[in-house]
Amino acid sequence: MAASSEYPAMTTKPRYLTGDKAGLQEFLDKFDVFLFDCDGVLWSGDHLFPGTVETLELLRNNGKQVVFVTNNSTKSRADYKKKLGTLGIPSSTEEIFSSSYSSSIYISRILNLPENKRKVFVVGETGIEQELKSENVPFIGGTDPAFLRDVKPEDYKRIAAGDPSILDPEVGVVLVGLDFHLNYLKLALAYHYIRRGAVFLATNIDSTLPNSGTLFPGAGSMSAPLIMMLGQEPVSLGKPNQAMMDAIEGKFQFDRSRACMVGDRANTDIRFGLEGKLGGTLAVLTGVSTKEDFVAGPIKPLAYLDKLSDLLEVQS
Amino acid sequence: MAASSEYPAMTTKPRYLTGDKAGLQEFLDKFDVFLFDCDGVLWSGDHLFPGTVETLELLRNNGKQVVFVTNNSTKSRADYKKKLGTLGIPSSTEEIFSSSYSSSIYISRILNLPENKRKVFVVGETGIEQELKSENVPFIGGTDPAFLRDVKPEDYKRIAAGDPSILDPEVGVVLVGLDFHLNYLKLALAYHYIRRGAVFLATNIDSTLPNSGTLFPGAGSMSAPLIMMLGQEPVSLGKPNQAMMDAIEGKFQFDRSRACMVGDRANTDIRFGLEGKLGGTLAVLTGVSTKEDFVAGPIKPLAYLDKLSDLLEVQS
Repeated sequence: MAASSEYPAMTTKPRYLTGDKAGLQEFLDKFDVFLFDCDGVLWSGDHLFPGTVETLELLRNNGKQVVFVTNNSTKSRADYKKKLGTLGIPSSTEEIFSSSYSSSIYISRILNLPENKRKVFVVGETGIEQELKSENVPFIGGTDPAFLRDVKPEDYKRIAAGDPSILDPEVGVVLVGLDFHLNYLKLALAYHYIRRGAVFLATNIDSTLPNSGTLFPGAGSMSAPLIMMLGQEPVSLGKPNQAMMDAIEGKFQFDRSRACMVGDRANTDIRFGLEGKLGGTLAVLTGVSTKEDFVAGPIKPLAYLDKLSDLLEVQS
Repeated sequence: MAASSEYPAMTTKPRYLTGDKAGLQEFLDKFDVFLFDCDGVLWSGDHLFPGTVETLELLRNNGKQVVFVTNNSTKSRADYKKKLGTLGIPSSTEEIFSSSYSSSIYISRILNLPENKRKVFVVGETGIEQELKSENVPFIGGTDPAFLRDVKPEDYKRIAAGDPSILDPEVGVVLVGLDFHLNYLKLALAYHYIRRGAVFLATNIDSTLPNSGTLFPGAGSMSAPLIMMLGQEPVSLGKPNQAMMDAIEGKFQFDRSRACMVGDRANTDIRFGLEGKLGGTLAVLTGVSTKEDFVAGPIKPLAYLDKLSDLLEVQS
């Protein structure tokens, strides 16, 4: 990757701010908006990191806009607000930006679909359905139990013939997210819709999903069979894809030079902020990437902290 | 692909034998064994090509060994013999070589598994199970209805902890074939078995499965999520992988220089014969690849025919 030529900032060694009170204050003063990756930054699994609530409070009290940016498509913004609440983090739905929401915005406001091709075939869970509803986008598939069945011999013939009773002619988009109920029928239908001209979208392409301290199949793994069959990649609406950044900017109308992306992963979070040409990127060492990744790797944040709550040192 | 340097024969224009009685006789005299790809050569879908039965009879009457080589892992050899019979093609189980059978042979006779790691976790259908049984290989998964369920919250913790009630410690192989009942649980278990050291095998890696004149998800599409998650390819036991050729040779003990692969696909069938250093490869134009593919493409057969039954012209 010719990263250093694309991002001049990435050739500079990131600044270590833990314990540097003046440096922290200077850093905070540069930004009006903080975009937060969540898992690995604010919490890990079900474990809230100490000081998370106080740090968010500090930022809000200093007039900073806080945005929670998540690739998790199984939850709607309302679901996510509930999850934050359960962990003890106060938030408003307006502060939450999920890949299910960015996908819905992309479909409703950016894709220019013909009148008779506005329906979405969903491979995914209720979070996607709720957000499509919030944007008045019609859809089929998803959690509809009619799709939770085996493929029958006659299905092959009906699909091959383009029978409208099994291939809805109004479908113009296939949107693939994490689906705990993925099956052969859904894969076959998604494949044929795309072959027949539907736009191939993915809420995100993370191959794995962290849970209980290990990894499980992620949304990218649901797209993988289709990518292999079609020889075509989906447009991803999650980090680090800039379609998500454009959607966030479209909603919050912020000045990118006064915004900072905070995350634990170099190749998704920090890359997302760098490619989005935000004024800053801040890494924390409580998640996936290590200090070595950030200091010696090809994708360097502007600054890094041992942990997010080190920001509280500005008050000391 | 630097194909021409690897296969000197491939730089030569393939010989067109339809209507060339003397050429046909000369070609037939060169070989004792004919390995047949089936769909696209002997039949298409449920449609038997005219002359198929007579052509096979001609070969057998002239003392040639006939072998049916199929990547279809959902059927056992016994199932496949039944299918051939239904289409009107007489055969014996001994003449049939399926990817489920080659996988079973590979596991039982070639992989040197430790005594306590001999169990196979199967992602696939009954054909694989029957062939594993025929080689006395213990297995779990497959068509067992216990695996046809949703992932439950406690499953994540049990899998993360390596709980032997969900991750059988004796599993040393994950074998992935076409599975019409693929689900999230099976993918999660397969992933964790491989991460814990199990050998990653695929019966075959065809991304699609022809049916009713179009394509559906193939065995390769079942491996795709695991490949993406693991960053690792499986060893494939189907065409064009030479593990299958080695298994065929191990069984039939033939002289490769006196064997000919017959097929309709340049990049699987013909490649399989060329990489196996067989004495000959014969292409037919009744399937996927076109005359141009064979004459101008990088993978050239020794000879080609409009259709298999053109071989009958030697009798005219």
